[in-house]
Amino acid sequence: MQSTMMDRPLLLDDILERASTQFGDVEIVTHMPDKSLHRYTYADMVKRAKQLAQALTDAGIKHGDRVATFSWNTHAHLEAYFGIPITGAVLHTLNLRLPPDDVAWIVNHAEDRILIIDDVLLPLYEKFADQVNFEKIVVVPLAGKPVPEGMISYDDFLASASGEFEYPEKSEYDACGMCYTSGTTGKPKGVVYSHRSSVLHAMASATPDTLNLSYNDVILPVVPMFHVNAWGLPYVSTLTGAKQVFPGPHMDAESLLKVYESENVNVTAGVPTIWMGIINALDAEPNRWKLHPEMRMTVGGSAVPEAMIRRFDKYGLTVIQAWGMTETSPLAAAARLKPNIQQRSEDEQYAIRATAGTPVPFVDTRIVGDEGEPLPWNGKEMGEIQVRGPWITGSYYRLENSEDKFTADGWLRTGDIATIDEDGYINITDRTKDVIKSGGEWISSVQLENAIMGHDDVAEAAVVAQPDEKWGERPLAAVVIREGRELSAEDLAAFLRERMEKWMVPENYVFVDEIPRTSTGKFSKLDLRKQLLDNA
Amino acid sequence: MQSTMMDRPLLLDDILERASTQFGDVEIVTHMPDKSLHRYTYADMVKRAKQLAQALTDAGIKHGDRVATFSWNTHAHLEAYFGIPITGAVLHTLNLRLPPDDVAWIVNHAEDRILIIDDVLLPLYEKFADQVNFEKIVVVPLAGKPVPEGMISYDDFLASASGEFEYPEKSEYDACGMCYTSGTTGKPKGVVYSHRSSVLHAMASATPDTLNLSYNDVILPVVPMFHVNAWGLPYVSTLTGAKQVFPGPHMDAESLLKVYESENVNVTAGVPTIWMGIINALDAEPNRWKLHPEMRMTVGGSAVPEAMIRRFDKYGLTVIQAWGMTETSPLAAAARLKPNIQQRSEDEQYAIRATAGTPVPFVDTRIVGDEGEPLPWNGKEMGEIQVRGPWITGSYYRLENSEDKFTADGWLRTGDIATIDEDGYINITDRTKDVIKSGGEWISSVQLENAIMGHDDVAEAAVVAQPDEKWGERPLAAVVIREGRELSAEDLAAFLRERMEKWMVPENYVFVDEIPRTSTGKFSKLDLRKQLLDNA
Repeated sequence: MQSTMMDRPLLLDDILERASTQFGDVEIVTHMPDKSLHRYTYADMVKRAKQLAQALTDAGIKHGDRVATFSWNTHAHLEAYFGIPITGAVLHTLNLRLPPDDVAWIVNHAEDRILIIDDVLLPLYEKFADQVNFEKIVVVPLAGKPVPEGMISYDDFLASASGEFEYPEKSEYDACGMCYTSGTTGKPKGVVYSHRSSVLHAMASATPDTLNLSYNDVILPVVPMFHVNAWGLPYVSTLTGAKQVFPGPHMDAESLLKVYESENVNVTAGVPTIWMGIINALDAEPNRWKLHPEMRMTVGGSAVPEAMIRRFDKYGLTVIQAWGMTETSPLAAAARLKPNIQQRSEDEQYAIRATAGTPVPFVDTRIVGDEGEPLPWNGKEMGEIQVRGPWITGSYYRLENSEDKFTADGWLRTGDIATIDEDGYINITDRTKDVIKSGGEWISSVQLENAIMGHDDVAEAAVVAQPDEKWGERPLAAVVIREGRELSAEDLAAFLRERMEKWMVPENYVFVDEIPRTSTGKFSKLDLRKQLLDNA
Repeated sequence: MQSTMMDRPLLLDDILERASTQFGDVEIVTHMPDKSLHRYTYADMVKRAKQLAQALTDAGIKHGDRVATFSWNTHAHLEAYFGIPITGAVLHTLNLRLPPDDVAWIVNHAEDRILIIDDVLLPLYEKFADQVNFEKIVVVPLAGKPVPEGMISYDDFLASASGEFEYPEKSEYDACGMCYTSGTTGKPKGVVYSHRSSVLHAMASATPDTLNLSYNDVILPVVPMFHVNAWGLPYVSTLTGAKQVFPGPHMDAESLLKVYESENVNVTAGVPTIWMGIINALDAEPNRWKLHPEMRMTVGGSAVPEAMIRRFDKYGLTVIQAWGMTETSPLAAAARLKPNIQQRSEDEQYAIRATAGTPVPFVDTRIVGDEGEPLPWNGKEMGEIQVRGPWITGSYYRLENSEDKFTADGWLRTGDIATIDEDGYINITDRTKDVIKSGGEWISSVQLENAIMGHDDVAEAAVVAQPDEKWGERPLAAVVIREGRELSAEDLAAFLRERMEKWMVPENYVFVDEIPRTSTGKFSKLDLRKQLLDNA
């Protein structure tokens, strides 16, 4: 039996149109390269996004074509987030932080036709220019730099739009955007989002137990719009009509704090490294900044140590951990406190806030053991976490032999090892490739790292598996000692033995100057393994 | 270009399954006929909903078949809200308040195969039993009454379920529920909801600027589950994991206040007549009840007078007006204050809170004039409000000649006359069939009624159009004078002339004992017209 409901597709078009009729006067602010604040309204943004759409259409961009961006978080990038998909084309955000060769590989793999690039990023483009061949390069004059020959200014491009843009018909299953993962192994893999997945992801993100976004909010996304689909924030922010504040190229703590204060930002989002800088700046000058009294910061990308959550709480800044990846649009879980958790002790509540949280609506979650068997949710059993849902990828763009990333019954294998407790809270303990299997038992490298970093003399630490004849594998710890401190392997091992099972404590420690990191700031265990083990 | 996203349909199945894994321990409470409180958990509800599904399947209910309910708001009705649709069948909620002949007509038109009925409602069923022919009647033992011969007890029916229920495959476009409108003219018209529309409606309802529902909430739906799709509350409440409290047959103010207090309810929803009783009870004994300090009440069905919003505010109870109808699932708009409105004077804010609010995400809205031309959003121009969106009906179930209810370009003609202001707030001024066209100008009957009811000696008033040779139509007011007061037509007209344009003020007044009402408690202008004009 069919319903009598209208058949209306879920399109980004509707988010954009609604913004102009409902939130026309609301401000959008960008911290420009010269440190001035560019201000305009949703009405301006919508108008320019539609001009961009018309200009792209005039330039021959057709349904399904890829248009790339190479940009900071700015109002112009927001225009592209809408202006490209509403034509039926695909927004392809290029990651500034990848090695130039990788960017070129990605551009060619995606067959990007046009590039929209910030003028201040042209030097970075030069590093891979000879490996790519865009039909047209449109330069956003953020710093007012002269447009190189053969390229066109973004403003001129918009002004070239003939007539009013009319939304072409689309299916909600049509592609609207794509991101490549910056995986630590192998070539980058492309994930292609649809209008449907983007809309549903935005709706779920807005709900009170997820990001809780409203038109009463002022949001500053620190998470780059060139990375992991900007956590979908451009879409959920525009859907809800929140005032949007973009940091432009200024991602340092001082710049962020200045804009948080001047624009009365109450919602922000980014990776832990950013917050480390912010908390240090706050500690250094506790009375300098007047931040929103109920500010909340969504953290993702990697886990926030509980200690940092506690430190922020002292300033009235609430850390809300979220979990996901490029493959999951990315929001898959968020760590908010259910009513029964709020009855527990303060320490227990902090422990829950340090988890990856509970799955958001319409994301199914399970943990499975080595044989693919589902494991119980008891907070103890560790297994690979697998997810499925309408905004979870089921394949990679034009990639053969990626079957091992998905299960036969249709779940994404995230590669994260986790426990799930009785209340549904997911606690990531490792990456599948990083977990240490010693004598048939799993040792969580993340748990070990956190324990080692709990030592007062340790700045940071990473643990990898070392092949071992007797046990199969044993943990090997790379440790950075804090400046001016001293620490021996024996003392550290003694410290750890007081805190965890004896068999988990590493026998081997390497003291290093720094832990190698990936382009996105995470520990690169791949590089660390090479460094420590390949030379062994 | 296709996306790489998984193709996962939007099904009520997922809301149910998530409830059991995420909110298993959360309570669901029902105020039983004997005034005891029945308590169980989401885990229990999910288990029983799946037993019901299995029992229905065993009884031969197939994909698309209609299963009717004739029930109060109870946990068992919630089980039916899920247990029926997850089989692929269609939940058909029958309205207890309709005349028995109409219920019979609806049952036969929908071809309902099975009836699930509360034992306490069997006497009501007897009134139309001879006009219908259910294959099976399942009796919910709310009051423990004996099950009549030829019927089966709901508990026995559940216990009969063979094995575990396995969700059959479904399309998100499949029907999941249906409601007939209790229109004041013509035969009832059937609206059929889909899994997709129900899921999207629930997601949009949960967002902060709409119902703002969270697992931290305790919700009591006063709006009947047998009427207007229960405003979708069973689905959004279960999606978010809110504690649900059902009033059973006890809808009087005293009973509601008792349960609000004992269960710490902070969200409730219903029509204005209910709130009138509540406010009177609070005024009578202001210190008797300890309600949740931040309780909010969503009001729909008809507009709440501003004065009532103010009266509730004194008790810390926030009225949030919402607008919709059976045809719109029903949530189409909600009256919350945008940031710019919050800058205005208190009086201006109250005026906005008394509107129908702004459209919820993915509901498109417009007002059109007599010729179908879109009118500007300036708060002044009145036109018929038309809507479209993924949970708006595009037709009626098996109904010929309903084209006049929809526009050629795919909008639902709501039959409501409204203005929309610059900020998007919809102000309903009339029903199309009630608006008075005098000398080429429109006079809002609602505006006139509010003005008349602003007179201290008036209990209530309704205005209809009276044919007039010179002006086409003129307003005719039916007025109920408050007990013990006196009022003349001359004094009332003088009072009105001070408050509105002279040409709007009625010349004719009829003083009556009561205004006739529809089965859902609204003024029945149809009956009033008959009463006042047909005899004239």
